[in-house]
Amino acid sequence: MTAASLALLSSPVEPAGRLLSPDELEAALRDIGARRYHNLHPFHRLLHDGKLDKDQVRAWALNRYYYQAMIPVKDATLLARLPDAALRRIWRQRIVDHDGDHEGDGGIERWLKLAEGVGFDRDYVLSTTGILSATRFSVEAYVHFVGQRSLLEAVASSLTEMFSPTIISERVAGMLKNYDFITRETLAYFDKRLTQAPRDADFALDYVKRHATTPELQAQALAALRFKCSVLWTQLDALYFAYVAPGMIPPDAWRPGEGLRADFVGSPA
Amino acid sequence: MTAASLALLSSPVEPAGRLLSPDELEAALRDIGARRYHNLHPFHRLLHDGKLDKDQVRAWALNRYYYQAMIPVKDATLLARLPDAALRRIWRQRIVDHDGDHEGDGGIERWLKLAEGVGFDRDYVLSTTGILSATRFSVEAYVHFVGQRSLLEAVASSLTEMFSPTIISERVAGMLKNYDFITRETLAYFDKRLTQAPRDADFALDYVKRHATTPELQAQALAALRFKCSVLWTQLDALYFAYVAPGMIPPDAWRPGEGLRADFVGSPA
Repeated sequence: MTAASLALLSSPVEPAGRLLSPDELEAALRDIGARRYHNLHPFHRLLHDGKLDKDQVRAWALNRYYYQAMIPVKDATLLARLPDAALRRIWRQRIVDHDGDHEGDGGIERWLKLAEGVGFDRDYVLSTTGILSATRFSVEAYVHFVGQRSLLEAVASSLTEMFSPTIISERVAGMLKNYDFITRETLAYFDKRLTQAPRDADFALDYVKRHATTPELQAQALAALRFKCSVLWTQLDALYFAYVAPGMIPPDAWRPGEGLRADFVGSPA
Repeated sequence: MTAASLALLSSPVEPAGRLLSPDELEAALRDIGARRYHNLHPFHRLLHDGKLDKDQVRAWALNRYYYQAMIPVKDATLLARLPDAALRRIWRQRIVDHDGDHEGDGGIERWLKLAEGVGFDRDYVLSTTGILSATRFSVEAYVHFVGQRSLLEAVASSLTEMFSPTIISERVAGMLKNYDFITRETLAYFDKRLTQAPRDADFALDYVKRHATTPELQAQALAALRFKCSVLWTQLDALYFAYVAPGMIPPDAWRPGEGLRADFVGSPA
């Protein structure tokens, strides 16, 4: 693919202004989160406030699995581009966290437990046959971005993790309080992320602050974080459209009742 | 990227059955169109029946521009993979059709005329800053698919053109009848496509029928066409969600009133 077509294959970067200090850059990054992170999306507000029914929570768990499953692929793509062992030693921990150290361990496994906890058959979730195409395309856009853009942009696109402790706390408290079919064990994925995400985000933020040393590079880093916010936002747009309102499920996407564990089939939604 | 991760980065392929005859394969491909082509999408029904307001038609024209603009990039990606001059001579005509022979010529230019005809400033459309992220991710998924999957799958993914004469006829007749701000000149893009698309589709269909010679290859070709239908469908899902119902425009996407020609600003929607 040519440089020109790759440039078109990208989120627009706003014109660069003056050089920001590292602290100003951090503030600008945090401001993006304050305005565009997906904790602000109406779907998450419904999820956390207990306003979704069990099938809508299932749709969220099923689709989000694909995002979880591709995170180590994204991180391995980035790992392959890191130029030295010291950086790679740090970044590879993300892959360990998601893939685990043995069968039954790791973040992907914990998300599968969440999906099973809300009623899904494990193999159905693993197959990803029921996810929305919009989920697939959004997640793949993220993987391609990390493989094709500069290393600075690839690292900066991970910085949504700066904002995740807030949403995780809201989510776990809200879901445990509002849904009788959700247990603390089902949500074990998020317990681990409360310590993993800030550790990862601290490193990535420091990297971005040290490497975004011109107005142009700072503009690229900010645009990369906006891009990543869009990756998360579009997934919730698609869930809302298909399963909340207007509720138009695309051809081939999961429909309530499909893919459930044998002991859940026929139990009331 | 590894073969395993690329396999995950793809639409699931259904298990292959028995070998179909070429005519049966064509019938199976046409059946996919009959059930999943985007003429069936509620957004298109509203568009063609005159049920959208001018701003909703603008949102469609603006977003669809990105698809049009990337089609020659997609076709150049495929061209680069064709092994002989005879095939390349035929496929390159698609690029000529879209890019034209001189400034002001070609399908992309005609789509820009359509966007200008409904009120947009040309440079705003060219910038693609106002398109939905879901549009961007869907279109890019198509370009990546054509670059990464087998040549048979890449060619098969173009076969939605088999179904386009029907939708174009419906669209042109419906839009001219129902919208007083639409002229035949604005819709000139579609006149050309009525002859170009069937010529292109005939060649691609013949290629697929001759090269899909095992049940596995036939299953791949069918899955590629389903994938492409999803690429088109998700774009309309996102338009419907943002601009029809529930009407939740994502951060940064075009909002009515933005990006219009100076002589349209302030004119009633």
